[in-house]
Amino acid sequence: MTINQSKPIAAIVGAGRTKFGELWYDDPEKLLFDAGLNCMQSVDKGIHRNQLEACYFGSFLYQSTNKMGLVPGHMAKELGLNVPITMTEAACASGGSAIYNACMAIRSGQYDTVLVGGFEKMTDRSNKISDDLMFAADPNEFGAGYTFPGLYATMMARYMYDYGEGKQECEDAMAMVASKNHHHAIKNEYAQFRREFTPEAIKKSSLVAHPVRLLHCSPVSDGAAALILTTPEKAHTYTDTPIYILASQQATNDVSLYTRESITSIKTTKLATAAAFKETNLTYKDIQIAEVHDCFTVEEVMFLEDSGYYEKGTAWKGIYESYEAGKTKKHTPYINEQNELIVNPGGGLKADGHPVGATGVRQLHEAWVQLRGQAGGQQVESGLNTALCHNIGGTGAICTVHILGR
Amino acid sequence: MTINQSKPIAAIVGAGRTKFGELWYDDPEKLLFDAGLNCMQSVDKGIHRNQLEACYFGSFLYQSTNKMGLVPGHMAKELGLNVPITMTEAACASGGSAIYNACMAIRSGQYDTVLVGGFEKMTDRSNKISDDLMFAADPNEFGAGYTFPGLYATMMARYMYDYGEGKQECEDAMAMVASKNHHHAIKNEYAQFRREFTPEAIKKSSLVAHPVRLLHCSPVSDGAAALILTTPEKAHTYTDTPIYILASQQATNDVSLYTRESITSIKTTKLATAAAFKETNLTYKDIQIAEVHDCFTVEEVMFLEDSGYYEKGTAWKGIYESYEAGKTKKHTPYINEQNELIVNPGGGLKADGHPVGATGVRQLHEAWVQLRGQAGGQQVESGLNTALCHNIGGTGAICTVHILGR
Repeated sequence: MTINQSKPIAAIVGAGRTKFGELWYDDPEKLLFDAGLNCMQSVDKGIHRNQLEACYFGSFLYQSTNKMGLVPGHMAKELGLNVPITMTEAACASGGSAIYNACMAIRSGQYDTVLVGGFEKMTDRSNKISDDLMFAADPNEFGAGYTFPGLYATMMARYMYDYGEGKQECEDAMAMVASKNHHHAIKNEYAQFRREFTPEAIKKSSLVAHPVRLLHCSPVSDGAAALILTTPEKAHTYTDTPIYILASQQATNDVSLYTRESITSIKTTKLATAAAFKETNLTYKDIQIAEVHDCFTVEEVMFLEDSGYYEKGTAWKGIYESYEAGKTKKHTPYINEQNELIVNPGGGLKADGHPVGATGVRQLHEAWVQLRGQAGGQQVESGLNTALCHNIGGTGAICTVHILGR
Repeated sequence: MTINQSKPIAAIVGAGRTKFGELWYDDPEKLLFDAGLNCMQSVDKGIHRNQLEACYFGSFLYQSTNKMGLVPGHMAKELGLNVPITMTEAACASGGSAIYNACMAIRSGQYDTVLVGGFEKMTDRSNKISDDLMFAADPNEFGAGYTFPGLYATMMARYMYDYGEGKQECEDAMAMVASKNHHHAIKNEYAQFRREFTPEAIKKSSLVAHPVRLLHCSPVSDGAAALILTTPEKAHTYTDTPIYILASQQATNDVSLYTRESITSIKTTKLATAAAFKETNLTYKDIQIAEVHDCFTVEEVMFLEDSGYYEKGTAWKGIYESYEAGKTKKHTPYINEQNELIVNPGGGLKADGHPVGATGVRQLHEAWVQLRGQAGGQQVESGLNTALCHNIGGTGAICTVHILGR
C-alpha cells in the first residue's frame, strides 16, 4: 500500500444522507436540509454551523423540474448560512462536480471547512422527467427520438456485438451486474429497492430499448446526501477517524455519442481515473471497493475496462466468472488475476437509487461509512483501506473520480 | 497605493465578449464560442487551446429557457476541449461565481491557466422570461405577484421613504444613475443601447412598478463574455501587460426579501466588499473605477453606501451633486470628500445590456480593457490602476466582488 506517499487533499469528517426513493412529501430544499443535518450530526466531536466556511451544492434538474434557481440563495435561507455558496451543474455528475470544486476550495487554502451537498427531486414530473433528462444529451440525439435508455442501449448492443462473441454469457453478465447490486442493497436501510432479483428475472423484465430491459436501468429517485470536508491538519478537531480524499479529478468530453471514436468505452472515465491514479501513485490493484456509476449495467461493465481492472472487451467474462464464484457471499467481488474488487457494496445507482445530483455525494457517503466500518448490515467484512468513487454525467460527457483512504 | 502589499491571486491575460442585445440568430453555444474565440485572440503573445487546463462557465436560464443541461459536455463539444469544465449557477451572479471558482482553481495550484465564460440567451422566451427569472426569488414572493421590477420597486420605494426626505432630488438621483450609464455607453461598440437619455426622459418613461420606470431597468439581453486567467508567475508568458486579480470574494444570503433586517441595503454586497478590501489592504478610496450591478438604478445607489463610498442614506445626495457637477464630462464621476469614482464606464447593465450569466464576466472584461488603456472611445482618460467589479444575483442573495489592479 502506497497511500502515504501522497498528501491527502482533504479529510471527510462527516457524511449524511436521506433515504432514496419516491419521497412525495419532501421538497428539494427539505431533502438537502435533512441530509445536511444528518451529516452534521455524524461528526464525532461535533460541529457548529458557524464552523462551515463555504458550501458547494450540486443538482441537475432543480430549474426545469422544480422551477427553482439561484440555489445558493435558497440554501442560504434553509441552512441559515451567509458563507459563500457555489452551485454546480453537471447532469448526473453534479454531485461529483460539487465535491471536486469543494476539494479545490480546500486545496486553495481559502477555506478550511466546507459543506458539500447533492440533491434531486425527480418524481414530481412523472414521465416528463425523461424529456428533462435529455438536456444532458445532444439535441440531435433527442430529436432523433433517443432518451437515455436508448443511448445506453446503443452502447450495450455495440459492446455485445463487438466483444460478446455471440455468447449467452455476455447477456447474462449484463444481468448479473444488476442482480449483484440488488443483492448488495438488501441490508441498506437508505436504499430505494431492497429486493433480490436473479439474472433470469432481470432478463425477463420488460424490454425498454433493445437490449436494455427495465431491470438494467437505475430508477428515477428523490434524495440528497452531504459531506463535511476539512483540511487534513484540522481533521482531528472533528474526529479521531477521518477518511482522506487522496485524489479529486474531473474530465469532460463531447456531449454527443455519435461523434465519439468509441461507444464501448467512456473517454472521461479513462482520463479521470488515470489522473486520479497518477495523483495518488496507486493503481487499480490497490482499490478495495469502488462506487461505480451503474446508471445502466453496461456502464459498470465499461468502467471495469476503462479503469484498467479488466482488459478491453473482457469485463463481461470476468463478471460472469466472478458472479458464479461469489454469488453466495454477502458481497460478490469481481475477481481478476491480481485481486478482488467489491463494486457498489450498498447497491449502487441500480438498487440504492439515483436522484441524479445526489448520486456523486451519496457515493462518498457510502465509501466513508464503509472505510470507517460503520456500514451496518452492508459492511464489507474485510478491513478496508481504499475506495474509489466514479460519477459520470450524460453518456459520459463528464466524469469525476475521487480516491479515498484511511 | 498599497496594491503591492497583497500577492495577486491570478492574472487576466485575455478577455473577450460578444455584442449584447437581441441576438436572434445566435444560439447560446455560439455566443460562448464567439466570446471565447475573441478572448483567445486578445492574448498579446498568443495562446493555443491546449494551454487551457480547465474551464469555468456561468449561466442562469440555459436549462429552463434554452432547454439545455450538462453545459460542460456541450461546451466541450463546441470548444473541442477535454479538460475539466465546471458550470456554476448563481442567477445574475453566475458569471461572477464562475470567476470566483476559477480563481479558487488557480489559488489551489491544481491548474495554471483557465478559461472563464459567462453567457445567456434570454430573448428566445419573449415575456415568459419574467417568470423564468423568478426562479431566483422566493416562491412566496412570486406567488404574491412579484417579478423583479416589483421587488426592486419595493426596495426603491422604501429607500426614498426612509432617506429621500420627501425631496424631488432623490427621485432625480434615481434617474441620473440611468442617464449617466446611458451616456457612458455612447462609445461602447458592444453595448445594447447607445443613446442618451436625460433624467427628465427617464422620469417620464412608462411606469413598471411604482416607483420603478422602464428606464430604471436593465434590459433583457443575449450575449457572452470570456476571460483567460493564469498564475501571476505565468502571466508574462502571455502578455507584457497583465491585469491582476487582487481579491476574489463571494457572499450568500437568504433569497427572500421579506426576511431581511433591511431592504435598503444588500448584506452580501457589504460582506463581499469588506472581505475584498480586507484581502487587498485597500479601501474604497483606492478604487478608481467600479463595475456595479445596476440591474435597477436603486441597486447602484445602494452599492455606493454598502461599499462605504457614501454614508448610509446619503448616496442619492452624492449622486445628485456629482451629476450636476460632471454631466458635461465624458465620464461623470461620483465625488465624495476624498476622491472621485467612475462607475460603469461602459454603460453598466443599464445600457451595455444584461444577459444575466454573462454580466459578471463582462464586468471584468470592461475593467481589463480600461486598466490596459484599450477601451477605445469609452476609455477613462486618467491613468487607471484599480478597478472593482460587483455582481449580484436575485435581490442580493449572492454577491461576488473582484478587485483588479495593474
